[in-house]
Amino acid sequence: MPQKPQILSRRTVARSRLFQVEELELLFANGVRTRFERLVSSGRGAVLIVPMLDDDTVLLIREYAAGTQRYELGLPKGLVEHGEELLEAANREIMEEVGYGAHQLDYLTAMTVAPGYLSHSTHVILARDLYPERRPGDEPEDIQVVPWKLSQLDQLIALDDCTEARSIAALYMARDQLSRIS
Amino acid sequence: MPQKPQILSRRTVARSRLFQVEELELLFANGVRTRFERLVSSGRGAVLIVPMLDDDTVLLIREYAAGTQRYELGLPKGLVEHGEELLEAANREIMEEVGYGAHQLDYLTAMTVAPGYLSHSTHVILARDLYPERRPGDEPEDIQVVPWKLSQLDQLIALDDCTEARSIAALYMARDQLSRIS
Repeated sequence: MPQKPQILSRRTVARSRLFQVEELELLFANGVRTRFERLVSSGRGAVLIVPMLDDDTVLLIREYAAGTQRYELGLPKGLVEHGEELLEAANREIMEEVGYGAHQLDYLTAMTVAPGYLSHSTHVILARDLYPERRPGDEPEDIQVVPWKLSQLDQLIALDDCTEARSIAALYMARDQLSRIS
Repeated sequence: MPQKPQILSRRTVARSRLFQVEELELLFANGVRTRFERLVSSGRGAVLIVPMLDDDTVLLIREYAAGTQRYELGLPKGLVEHGEELLEAANREIMEEVGYGAHQLDYLTAMTVAPGYLSHSTHVILARDLYPERRPGDEPEDIQVVPWKLSQLDQLIALDDCTEARSIAALYMARDQLSRIS
C-alpha cells in the first residue's frame, strides 16, 4: 500500500444548511503538493436496505430525487440517527419507506459514493423475514413501493429511472449472496 | 409515473472552486411545499471504464481519494472534457490511468451517484481489445495498476479498499454482459 500524503492544512471554504466544503492541502510522498476540495458529511453515514419479501422478490421504492430532478427507482435508504445502531436504523427506514419490519437483518458491506470528494459511507443491509409495520417518515409525499424479481435484475437496470450506483451494486451483491445460501 | 413537483424557486446558497450548492423550493402534487439542497455539476458528466486485458482480467487502479482520505481500489474514471465524445473520453482516461488504449469500446449504461442531492451522471464503458499506449494525466503521483480476475469478484468486494459503489456496480454489470457474450 502506498504511503498516504501528508495533510499540510485544512479549512472550510463553503458551507450551506446541508453541505460543508473543506479544502485540503496535501503533500504526496513524491514531493508533489496539491489542493483538493471534499464534502464533509456527518460521521454516522447512511444505511441502504435490500428488503426481500420472499427469496426472489425485493421491495424497491420510487421517490423524487431533487439532485437529478426526476423520480428514481431504487432501494430504501436513509441517514443513521444519533445513538442508533446500523441494523436498528435499517429496520426503521424500511418501516418508514416500504411499510415492513424485518426479523432477520444481515450486514453485507460498506460502500462509498464518490471517495475522491465525499467522505460519506453507506452500509448495505439485507433484510429478510419481513412483517407488515408502518412508521411515519419525513417524506414530502407517499413513497411508491415497487416489488421486483431479482431474477429479472437485467431488465431493472435497463430502465431509465433505475440509475443509482449504490442500489445497483447492492442488488447484485444480494443476488449473489442469496444464490450462495439457497 | 407520479407527477413531478413544481420548482417554485432556485438559488445558489454556497459556492467553492469545485462545488455549487443550489437550494430548490418545491411544491409537490399533494400540496406539500419543501426546500431541498443539491450540488450542481458541470453538464458533461463523467466516464467510468471497465478495461478488460483478456476475457477475465480487468485492470483496476489504486489511487489516493481525498474524500475518504485513504487509497481506494476501483475502476479508472474521469470527467468528460469539453467537445469530447463519451467513447473518446473513455479511451483518453484509460491511456492516462492504466497505460492502454482500446480498439473496442461499448457503452453499457448511465449511473447516478446520489440522485437525491447530486445532479452528476457517470457513463459506464466496457473497453476491450487493448493495446499499450500511455498519455500523461494530471494525477499528483503515479497510479498503481492492479489486474484482477472477474471470476474472483467476491474476493475483491470483500477488500476494505474496494468500496466505490459505481466501480462495484460496473464490475458486476460487465461480468454479466461478458458471460452472455461468451
